Amino acid sequence: MPADPDSGLLSPVRAGTPAEAATGDRAFTAALLAAEAALARAQARLGTIPAEAAARITAAAQQLAGTIDVVSLARDARATGNPVVSLVRTLSAEVPDLADYVHRGSTSQDIVDTAMMVIARDTVQLIVADLTTTAAELATLARAHRDTVMPGRTLTAHAVPTTFGLKAAVWRQGVLESARRLRALTFPVSMGGAAGTLAAYVQYGDGTDDYVDRLVTAFAEETALAAPLLPWHADRTPVAELAAALAAASTALGKIAVDVQVLARTEIAEATEATGGGSSAMPHKQNPVRSALIRSAALQVPVLAAGVTQCGLAEDERSAGVWQAEWQLLRECLRLAGGAAYTAADLAQGLTVHAEHMRENVELTNGLIVSERLSAALAPILGKARAKDLLGGASRRAIEENRSLAEVLAEIPEITDAVDPATLADLLEPARYVGAAGRLVDRALASPEA
Amino acid sequence: MPADPDSGLLSPVRAGTPAEAATGDRAFTAALLAAEAALARAQARLGTIPAEAAARITAAAQQLAGTIDVVSLARDARATGNPVVSLVRTLSAEVPDLADYVHRGSTSQDIVDTAMMVIARDTVQLIVADLTTTAAELATLARAHRDTVMPGRTLTAHAVPTTFGLKAAVWRQGVLESARRLRALTFPVSMGGAAGTLAAYVQYGDGTDDYVDRLVTAFAEETALAAPLLPWHADRTPVAELAAALAAASTALGKIAVDVQVLARTEIAEATEATGGGSSAMPHKQNPVRSALIRSAALQVPVLAAGVTQCGLAEDERSAGVWQAEWQLLRECLRLAGGAAYTAADLAQGLTVHAEHMRENVELTNGLIVSERLSAALAPILGKARAKDLLGGASRRAIEENRSLAEVLAEIPEITDAVDPATLADLLEPARYVGAAGRLVDRALASPEA
Amino acid sequence: MPADPDSGLLSPVRAGTPAEAATGDRAFTAALLAAEAALARAQARLGTIPAEAAARITAAAQQLAGTIDVVSLARDARATGNPVVSLVRTLSAEVPDLADYVHRGSTSQDIVDTAMMVIARDTVQLIVADLTTTAAELATLARAHRDTVMPGRTLTAHAVPTTFGLKAAVWRQGVLESARRLRALTFPVSMGGAAGTLAAYVQYGDGTDDYVDRLVTAFAEETALAAPLLPWHADRTPVAELAAALAAASTALGKIAVDVQVLARTEIAEATEATGGGSSAMPHKQNPVRSALIRSAALQVPVLAAGVTQCGLAEDERSAGVWQAEWQLLRECLRLAGGAAYTAADLAQGLTVHAEHMRENVELTNGLIVSERLSAALAPILGKARAKDLLGGASRRAIEENRSLAEVLAEIPEITDAVDPATLADLLEPARYVGAAGRLVDRALASPEA
Amino acid sequence: MPADPDSGLLSPVRAGTPAEAATGDRAFTAALLAAEAALARAQARLGTIPAEAAARITAAAQQLAGTIDVVSLARDARATGNPVVSLVRTLSAEVPDLADYVHRGSTSQDIVDTAMMVIARDTVQLIVADLTTTAAELATLARAHRDTVMPGRTLTAHAVPTTFGLKAAVWRQGVLESARRLRALTFPVSMGGAAGTLAAYVQYGDGTDDYVDRLVTAFAEETALAAPLLPWHADRTPVAELAAALAAASTALGKIAVDVQVLARTEIAEATEATGGGSSAMPHKQNPVRSALIRSAALQVPVLAAGVTQCGLAEDERSAGVWQAEWQLLRECLRLAGGAAYTAADLAQGLTVHAEHMRENVELTNGLIVSERLSAALAPILGKARAKDLLGGASRRAIEENRSLAEVLAEIPEITDAVDPATLADLLEPARYVGAAGRLVDRALASPEA
Repeated sequence: MPADPDSGLLSPVRAGTPAEAATGDRAFTAALLAAEAALARAQARLGTIPAEAAARITAAAQQLAGTIDVVSLARDARATGNPVVSLVRTLSAEVPDLADYVHRGSTSQDIVDTAMMVIARDTVQLIVADLTTTAAELATLARAHRDTVMPGRTLTAHAVPTTFGLKAAVWRQGVLESARRLRALTFPVSMGGAAGTLAAYVQYGDGTDDYVDRLVTAFAEETALAAPLLPWHADRTPVAELAAALAAASTALGKIAVDVQVLARTEIAEATEATGGGSSAMPHKQNPVRSALIRSAALQVPVLAAGVTQCGLAEDERSAGVWQAEWQLLRECLRLAGGAAYTAADLAQGLTVHAEHMRENVELTNGLIVSERLSAALAPILGKARAKDLLGGASRRAIEENRSLAEVLAEIPEITDAVDPATLADLLEPARYVGAAGRLVDRALASPEA
Repeated sequence: MPADPDSGLLSPVRAGTPAEAATGDRAFTAALLAAEAALARAQARLGTIPAEAAARITAAAQQLAGTIDVVSLARDARATGNPVVSLVRTLSAEVPDLADYVHRGSTSQDIVDTAMMVIARDTVQLIVADLTTTAAELATLARAHRDTVMPGRTLTAHAVPTTFGLKAAVWRQGVLESARRLRALTFPVSMGGAAGTLAAYVQYGDGTDDYVDRLVTAFAEETALAAPLLPWHADRTPVAELAAALAAASTALGKIAVDVQVLARTEIAEATEATGGGSSAMPHKQNPVRSALIRSAALQVPVLAAGVTQCGLAEDERSAGVWQAEWQLLRECLRLAGGAAYTAADLAQGLTVHAEHMRENVELTNGLIVSERLSAALAPILGKARAKDLLGGASRRAIEENRSLAEVLAEIPEITDAVDPATLADLLEPARYVGAAGRLVDRALASPEA
Repeated sequence: MPADPDSGLLSPVRAGTPAEAATGDRAFTAALLAAEAALARAQARLGTIPAEAAARITAAAQQLAGTIDVVSLARDARATGNPVVSLVRTLSAEVPDLADYVHRGSTSQDIVDTAMMVIARDTVQLIVADLTTTAAELATLARAHRDTVMPGRTLTAHAVPTTFGLKAAVWRQGVLESARRLRALTFPVSMGGAAGTLAAYVQYGDGTDDYVDRLVTAFAEETALAAPLLPWHADRTPVAELAAALAAASTALGKIAVDVQVLARTEIAEATEATGGGSSAMPHKQNPVRSALIRSAALQVPVLAAGVTQCGLAEDERSAGVWQAEWQLLRECLRLAGGAAYTAADLAQGLTVHAEHMRENVELTNGLIVSERLSAALAPILGKARAKDLLGGASRRAIEENRSLAEVLAEIPEITDAVDPATLADLLEPARYVGAAGRLVDRALASPEA
Repeated sequence: MPADPDSGLLSPVRAGTPAEAATGDRAFTAALLAAEAALARAQARLGTIPAEAAARITAAAQQLAGTIDVVSLARDARATGNPVVSLVRTLSAEVPDLADYVHRGSTSQDIVDTAMMVIARDTVQLIVADLTTTAAELATLARAHRDTVMPGRTLTAHAVPTTFGLKAAVWRQGVLESARRLRALTFPVSMGGAAGTLAAYVQYGDGTDDYVDRLVTAFAEETALAAPLLPWHADRTPVAELAAALAAASTALGKIAVDVQVLARTEIAEATEATGGGSSAMPHKQNPVRSALIRSAALQVPVLAAGVTQCGLAEDERSAGVWQAEWQLLRECLRLAGGAAYTAADLAQGLTVHAEHMRENVELTNGLIVSERLSAALAPILGKARAKDLLGGASRRAIEENRSLAEVLAEIPEITDAVDPATLADLLEPARYVGAAGRLVDRALASPEA
C-alpha cells in the first residue's frame, strides 16, 4: 500500500504553521531518537555505559533522525503496538557493536512518553509565544478603544452599552489565563522500565542505593524535562493536564473568534479582519477567515481532550490500547491549539475596528439600550412602580412608532416635570452609561502579561 | 516552514491499511479534482458547456491528481478557509482556454462535500468488506465452539457458565448490525451553489424549468453518489449519520477487543491472538496487540464522532468555521474505523481458543458457578427459604475450606435425602447449565450475514 | 442525608415538559415494576407460574409504582450496583406467598434494560409527535415565504440572495430526517438471565425445546417491545442507536435555533419569537428564549450520546460499571431531546417573519449581493477577465463611495453599451437571483412528512 | 404536568451521598437566595441601601430557601431562560416594601454564576476531604505492602514483578495530584451587571470612583468567594478549570477502580472489596460494586466536562443558550466526582489484599516473569545474542512442557557452567527483581499529602 500522508489539507488552521512542523511524524521520530540518545548519555554520566558509546549512539540517532524511513516505522508499529521496537532495531543496526548499550534497561513507554513530552514542551512554547503576541495586540486595542461605545449584546439583542475596550480586555484576560496555565505545566521525563519498577535499569546499574534517583535526574537533564516523583506510566495526570490546558487555550481564542464573527456580520460591520478570505464564487466577499479557522480548532480540541482524559482510565501497569489511543488525540490537540494561536496573533494584529458603526448601532434601538438606566434614575423620583409603568409605555410607543425614546419621553409631562431636558439628554446618552468599563480596562491592562 | 506530514506513526491501528490510503491528502485532492471534472461532464451532458471542454477538464484533473503539490494546496487553504479556490486556479491554469468552464456556477462547499462523500463511500466499502470477513470468521468460531463451556463473567466475577460459541455469536451480531447500518448509509452529491439556491448553476443553465433537477442527477451519476432532495450545505444529517455509523462499527469491534483482552490474561488464558505483539524489553511476552490497536480506535471514534455531530449546529447558509471543523474529525473516524475493521478481520482469523483452559476455569469456583441452578432445583423440594439457607451455608463452607461444593453438599443429609447422587452430579455439571446457549448460536448463525 | 432531588432547575429546556415527566425516577421505577409484572404474566401465559400469581404480582407492582419510596430505592442501589435487588425484595414483601414467582429466573439487567426501553419508546413517541408538529409549522412557513427574498449568508457575510421559504424547507428537512430515524428505532425487550444464556429461565421452564423462544416473545408482547434475535446484555447496539438518533434530533432542532438567533439580532431583525424572554434587568428586552433553550440542549446531547456509545466498550457478559454509566447519560439524552422538541414546536408556531426587514437587508450591500450574477451574465459579452475587472472595480467604488452598484455601473460606458438599462436593472434585482429556491421549496413540501 | 424529580435512581454512585445533597435543586435555590442576600448586605456595607433592608432581605431569603416551591421555580425558568427573574419576584413579594433593594443593579447571570461557585466550592471541599481520606488509606496500604510481590501486568500479560505497595503509591499519587488541583481552584464571585460593565451597580452607587471595586470586594466577602479582576460573564475560564479538575479527580479514582476490578477477577483474586455487591440471581457472588460505581462516574465526567469547556465558545456579552448548557453538565460533574470520591474512600478503607494469591500468580509463568532479568544478567557472560537464544529456547520449552524455567535452565550446561545454582535461584526469584519499587514507595510516602 503506497503511503498517502497528511499535510493539513483538511485542517487549514494548522497547515504550514510552526506547530504543525513541531508535531509531524519526522519531528516525533526525531524526539524518539533523541530520547534513546539521552538515555545513553544519562547512563554514561553515571558510568554504567562507556561515554564513547553514548557519544556514538547520540551521533547515530541524530543522523537517523533525518534519514530514517518514517512510513516504514509507522507500519512496523502495528506488529508491536508502538514504534520503538522497530526504532531500536534500526538504531542498533547503525552501531552494531554498541547494540548492548542502546535502549539499555528501557521499555517502549519510557521512550514514547518522553518523546511526547519533548514535543509537547516545544509546541507549548510556540503556543505561549503566540498567545503573548495576541494578548499584547489585544492590550493595544483595549487601550485605543477604552472609551469606544458599542452595544453590549446578550441573548443576541442589545442590552446596555459597553465599550470595545472592555470587550478586548476580557478577550485578553482569557488569553492570559490560558497562557499562564500552559506555562505552569510540568513536562516530566518518563522512566519506569517494563512495569514501572525501573528493575532493568537497576539491573544494569552500579549497585548503589540511589542509582535510579541519579539516573532519572540525569535523563531529565539530558532531555531538559522534569524529574517526576514516581514513574507515570500508569498515572496519566501530566497528559490530562496538558490536554485540558490546550482545550482552555483554544477555547479562549475561539471566544474571540465567535465575537469577531458577530462584529463582522454585514449588518453589524463593527470590525473586519485584514484582507484575505476571498470566495471561489463571489467577487465582493471578504470572509472573516481567520476567525473561522480559529473557531474550527476550538470546536475540536475539547472533545479530543476529553478523549485524552478518558485514557487515564487504564488498567494495570500498562493498558492494552488505552495508551495508544492517547497519542494522536494529544498531537491533534497540540497542533490545533498551535494553529489557533498562530492564527489568533495574525487576527489580532490585523483587526480593524469601526467605531463609527459601533456608534450607529448603539443608537439603533432609539434609546432603549439605556432603558435600564432610566429605570434606575427615575425610580427614586417617581417611585419604582410608576417609573416602570411610564418607561414601559414609552418604550413600546418608541418601538411602534419608530421614534426615539427621547422624543417620546419629552412628550410626557410627568417625565419633563421630574427631570430637566439636559439631565434627560444625559441619561439617554449611551456613552454616559458604560458603568465601570473604563476603570475595568485600566485595571486589566495594569495587570502583568505573564 | 518545511512540511512534516503524518503517516500514521501515532496511529498504528491504521498505519499502512487500505483505509489510510483511501483517506490521505492525495486521495482527497484526487476526489476534489474528480468532483470538478464530474461537474464539467454533467454540464456537458446537459449541453451547457462543450463536451470537448468537459473531456479536456477531466483529463487535466486526472493528470493533476498525481502531480499537484498537496502541501501547497493545504497551505493555500488558509487564505480562503478551504482548498478549492487554489485548486480551481491550478486546474484552470492547466486548461487556460477553458477556464470559463471550470467550476462553472459552483462553490467550494459543493466540491469539498462531494469529495468527502466519495472518500467516505469508498472507505465505507472497505470497512464493510472487513466487517463481513470478521463476521464470517466469528461465525466459524461460534459454530466450532457451540458447546465449549466457559465461565460467564459479570462484574469481573464468574456468574454462571456460558459457551464460547454464544460469546462469538454475540460479537458477530454486533459486527453485522454495524455493517448493516454502514450499508444503509446514503452518500449524496453536494450541489447548492453559493448559498444553497443553485442560482449560478441556473444562470449558466439552459433556461428550462427542470434544468437544475437534471443537473443534480447528472452530477450524481458522474460521481456515483445519490441525488439529494435538497442541498445539504446547511443540513448536515448525511455527515452526522456517517459519523454515528462509524462510531457504532468501531464500538462493535472494540467490544470484541476488550473481551479478547480478558480471555488473553495470563491467569485466564482462554484465548490467544496469532503471533506478534513482541515487547521491546521482555523476550517471553506475546501481547494481544491486535485487540490493543482495535481498542485504541474504539476509544477515539465516539468522541470524534460527537465533534462531527456538533458541527450540525452551524449558523446560516454556511457557517464560519463549523464546517471546517468537520473535515479532519470525519476523516479520522473513517480511517480509525477502517483500521479497526482491517485489524479485527486479522484478529478473528488468527484467534486461538483454549477450550481446556475454559473448562479449568469454569471449575475454579468448585461448583459455585452453578449455585443459581441448585437454588432453582432445590426450592420446589425444600422450599425456597430452606434451600437458600442450606446452599448459602454450603457455599460459604466450600469457600472457607476450599473444597468442592459437591463434596460439602454430599455431607448434608437434607440434601442427599432430597436428590440422588446422579441428579446432584448432573445439577453440578457446568456443561449442563448453559441454558439456551446452543439454541441461540444456531438461531444467530441461521440469520443472514447481510 | 435528606434527599434534595432535581426538578429541572438547571435544565429549563426540559423543566415541566412531558419528556421530563416520562423519564423521572418514579416513571422509571414504574417501568421497572411493570417489567417484573410483565415477566410474571409472560411465564403465566406459558404455564410455568400460576395465572393467579401473575395477576396478583401485576396488581402489587401497579400499586407499588405509586407508593414505593423512590429515594430509598435509589440509595439501596449503591449496595448492589442497581436498584433491582431492593425492588424485588419490596415487591416480594407485598406478595410474600408468591415470592417464588417474582423475578423468576431473571437478573437485574433484564429488568433495567427492559424498563429503559419502555421509557425510551414512550419518550421517543413524544419527541416524534413534537418533531411532526414542528415540521408541519415549518411547512406552513416555507409555503408562506416561498418567494420572500432575504440575504443568503455564508461565513457571516451576505453571499447571494435566498428565500426564507428555502431556509424553512431545509430546517424542516433536517427535522423530518431525524424523526424518520427515531421512528425506525427498535426497542427490544431484554431477556438473558444471569449471563446471557437464559439458563435460569430454562431451569424454571417447561422442558420444551422452544420454551425460551416463546418466553421471549411473550415478554416482548407483554411489554409491547420487540423480541431480539439474541440477548443484548453485551451488545449495546440498541442503546447506541437510540443515543445517536437523539443527538441527530437535537442537532436538527439546534440548527433552527442558531439560525433564528441570527435572524433575531437587533441589527438584523428578520424574525422574532413569540413574546416571552423577559430580562431581570432591562425592561425593553425580548430575548429569543426558546431558541436559547433549544440550543442549550443541542450543545449537550452529542457529548452525552458519545458517552453512551463508549459504553458499548464493555467487557464480559456484563461489565463492572460501564453499564451503570449508560443510564443517566441516556436519560439526559431522552429528556433534553424531548425538551428541545417540545420547545421547537412552540418556537415554530410562534415565529414571526419580518419580510420587510429581509428586503431591507438584502439591499444593504447596494447590489453587491448579486455580483456573482453580474459576473456570469457579463462574461459571455465582455469576456470573463474583462467582466471580472470591471465588476471588481465597480464593486470597490460602490463600497468606498457608499453608492449603489447600479449607479456606479450606469456610469461605465462599456457596461451601458453591453446591456440595456432594463436588463441591467433586472440583473441587479435580488428577487430575480434566487436560483431554484422556489422549485426546491415545492419539491421539499411535496415529499411526505413521515 | 406533575413533577417527577430525580433522586439518583439512575446514578447510584452519588445516590444519597453528601455531594448529591450539596448540589440538589433546593441547595442550588438556597445558594441563589443567599447570593441575593449577600448582594444586599454588600450594598448595605457601602451605604447604598439601608442596613435594615439588607438584614430583612437576608432573613427573608433564608426563610424562603426552605419553603419556596422549587418545581415552580424550575418551570418559570422556561419563560426567561433562567430561574432568577421568578426568584426575584418571589423574594420581593416577601418584603414588598423593600422590593427596590432586592437584586439592585443586578442581572440574572451575576446571581446564577455566584450561586454556582458557592455550590462548587462547597462540593469541592467535600471531594477534597474524601480524596484526602482515600490517599491516607492508600498510604497505609502502600506501607503495609511495600514488599508484597505481585505480577506487573502490561497489555494484560505478566511482564515483570512489581509490588502492591508501589501500585498503591501510584494510585495515591494520582489522587493527591487531583486533590492539589482542586485545592488550587479559584471560585470567583460574579458581578458584571446587564452586560459586564457593572453600569446599574454604578448607577445605584455612591458616585465615588472606586465604588465598584469596593462593591465587588464586599460581595466576595459576603459570599466567601474570590474577587475577580474582571467580570467573567464572557470569560468562562473558572468554570472550565473546575470541570477539568473534576474530570481529573474522577479519572484518578477510576484508575484505581479498573485496577481493583482486575485484581478482583475470579482467576486473579489478589484483592477483594469489603462485603456488599450481592446479585439478584446468584447467591455466591460478591461483586466489586464500589469500583463499578466509581468507574461509572469516571466514564461520564470527562465527556460532561468537555461539554462544559465547549461552552466557553460563547458569543457576545452573554450568549443565547450556551450559558444555559453549562449548568446541568457542571452539576453532574460535581456530584459524580463527589460520589466517586465518597465511594473511593469507602473502597480504600475496606480493600483486602491477598498477598498469598499475588505470590501464587507471580509464579504462574514458571519463572518467565523474570526473563528480562536473566537476559540482562547472562548477556555480559554469554554475549547478548547467545544469551537471548538460550533464554528464548528455554522459555519456549518451559511453556510447551509446562515446567519451570529453573528446571529447564538447570539442564543446559552452558547455563550451569556460567552461573552457580545459588545465583541462578536468586536470579529467578521474583521478589529479588522488583527494582526500585520499595525505594519509590518510601519516596512517595515521604511527600506531603497536601
